[in-house]
Amino acid sequence: MSGFPTFPRGLTAPVLTPFEDDGVVSHGRYLEHARRLLGEGCVALVPFGTTGEALSVGIDERMTALDALVDGGIDPSVLMPGTGLSNVPDTVRLTGHAVGAGCAAVLVLPPFYVKNPSDQGLIDHLEAVIAGVSDDRLRIVLYHIPQVAGVGWPVAVARRLHEAHPDTVVGVKDSSGDWGTTAAFFDVDGLIVWPGSEAWLLDGLGEGGPGCISATANVNAPAISGVVDLHLAGRHNEADAALRAARDWRTGLGEPLVPAMKRLLAQRLEDPTWANVRPPFEVAPA
Amino acid sequence: MSGFPTFPRGLTAPVLTPFEDDGVVSHGRYLEHARRLLGEGCVALVPFGTTGEALSVGIDERMTALDALVDGGIDPSVLMPGTGLSNVPDTVRLTGHAVGAGCAAVLVLPPFYVKNPSDQGLIDHLEAVIAGVSDDRLRIVLYHIPQVAGVGWPVAVARRLHEAHPDTVVGVKDSSGDWGTTAAFFDVDGLIVWPGSEAWLLDGLGEGGPGCISATANVNAPAISGVVDLHLAGRHNEADAALRAARDWRTGLGEPLVPAMKRLLAQRLEDPTWANVRPPFEVAPA
Repeated sequence: MSGFPTFPRGLTAPVLTPFEDDGVVSHGRYLEHARRLLGEGCVALVPFGTTGEALSVGIDERMTALDALVDGGIDPSVLMPGTGLSNVPDTVRLTGHAVGAGCAAVLVLPPFYVKNPSDQGLIDHLEAVIAGVSDDRLRIVLYHIPQVAGVGWPVAVARRLHEAHPDTVVGVKDSSGDWGTTAAFFDVDGLIVWPGSEAWLLDGLGEGGPGCISATANVNAPAISGVVDLHLAGRHNEADAALRAARDWRTGLGEPLVPAMKRLLAQRLEDPTWANVRPPFEVAPA
Repeated sequence: MSGFPTFPRGLTAPVLTPFEDDGVVSHGRYLEHARRLLGEGCVALVPFGTTGEALSVGIDERMTALDALVDGGIDPSVLMPGTGLSNVPDTVRLTGHAVGAGCAAVLVLPPFYVKNPSDQGLIDHLEAVIAGVSDDRLRIVLYHIPQVAGVGWPVAVARRLHEAHPDTVVGVKDSSGDWGTTAAFFDVDGLIVWPGSEAWLLDGLGEGGPGCISATANVNAPAISGVVDLHLAGRHNEADAALRAARDWRTGLGEPLVPAMKRLLAQRLEDPTWANVRPPFEVAPA
């Protein structure tokens, strides 16, 4: 199983998507933020995850914005964009574009409109995406976030897909927030598992995973990536304490998290435009 | 308030979307089915509702299929296609296309990926769609189906939108299945309300509504439209009995409903291709 031989262990950031005051994606701020996160210790970036308001951004806009990152010099081998939509043809379109841009992998949601799908129905959807993209470079990370999407990737489905396509369905991002589920994904031999929050960062590293994909990396990457450094240096007590501090800090951010983090960035960068969000989010009060 | 002056009272069908054996939308069967439903007493058609597997069909495919209906001779003044996606730009694209094709109205889902949106966030989304389409011919029917979409249009939001845009946000399709909710929508002065099932057909007509939009119209239109005819003729006891018969017949269809109805059509028409569905649905057994 090939996996991501080039992916170092560490913190991955699901990148916030900045919008200009007229609502379009701000390519300048996007590129600047991606560079900043890599400079702050992130080892990889997920454009257009839930944190990136992915489902509030149009298909063409998503492709253009990804191109802006790569054209701006972000190495596509550290990029794992979200490309999953509720239908096969548009998922193939977004995914094929990301593969063509050289991205290391893509995060794919289950078909999330129809509720309570069968296991076979989920498998049929993903296999249709794989067949539609038809590119040996395709590496899929299943994006499990049932509390938002309304549909998840059951562990049994992830196992069947990984066993049938070991070089293509390589991993899972588990944003369920439930460690029992994350541990069950880790039990699938060869599957790469990223917990979707820094809460399970050290547990995930302890299981041999590459690290976590955490929304708060957007505003707290130095602290969280520092936890990884301490862990890798074998300084486990200090890593535990640093993680507790990062978790405590997070509780001050407010909800909903995306507008709150954008407001914080607007303040830090003295750039009010950073606070912009797309509906159904509302701009957080200054 | 202009509403739909040309929409007669009666049964509206959310049209099933047929797929060829290679998976593409079957334009021939689609047009034939639309003509059949109008011939069986339906007064209007909703292409690409939930019954039409709308969210399993790509944006370009949806526009091409709608064009195929209109180019094939279906009067666009009886068409109310679903055009709501989770983001504004792609919703504007689909909606603008439908308005340009002369459709009487469009059904618009709330932005359904982000859960528990605020009322203001929902209003911001729809007002951005209205501004983006920017066409006086636009007539929006809010599509309320929270048990599938995961997000609904609260009655208070429908009221605010209708009061702010009385000639644009003209109605609600209430597929909640809860008559209390439907009745609350009817309480919004001037709002046109379609219950999303024949179960509430007579109640909706009794409140002065135009009728219902019912999935089973795809396979039982003569019986259901006959209920409307009896009601309009003042033969209320016979209408009640005919509706009970239609409801009883429905219980034999099996679940999930979309594959089951497609299988029934495949059998009736002796056309096995009609049974095809898109994932996450599975083809119903023969």
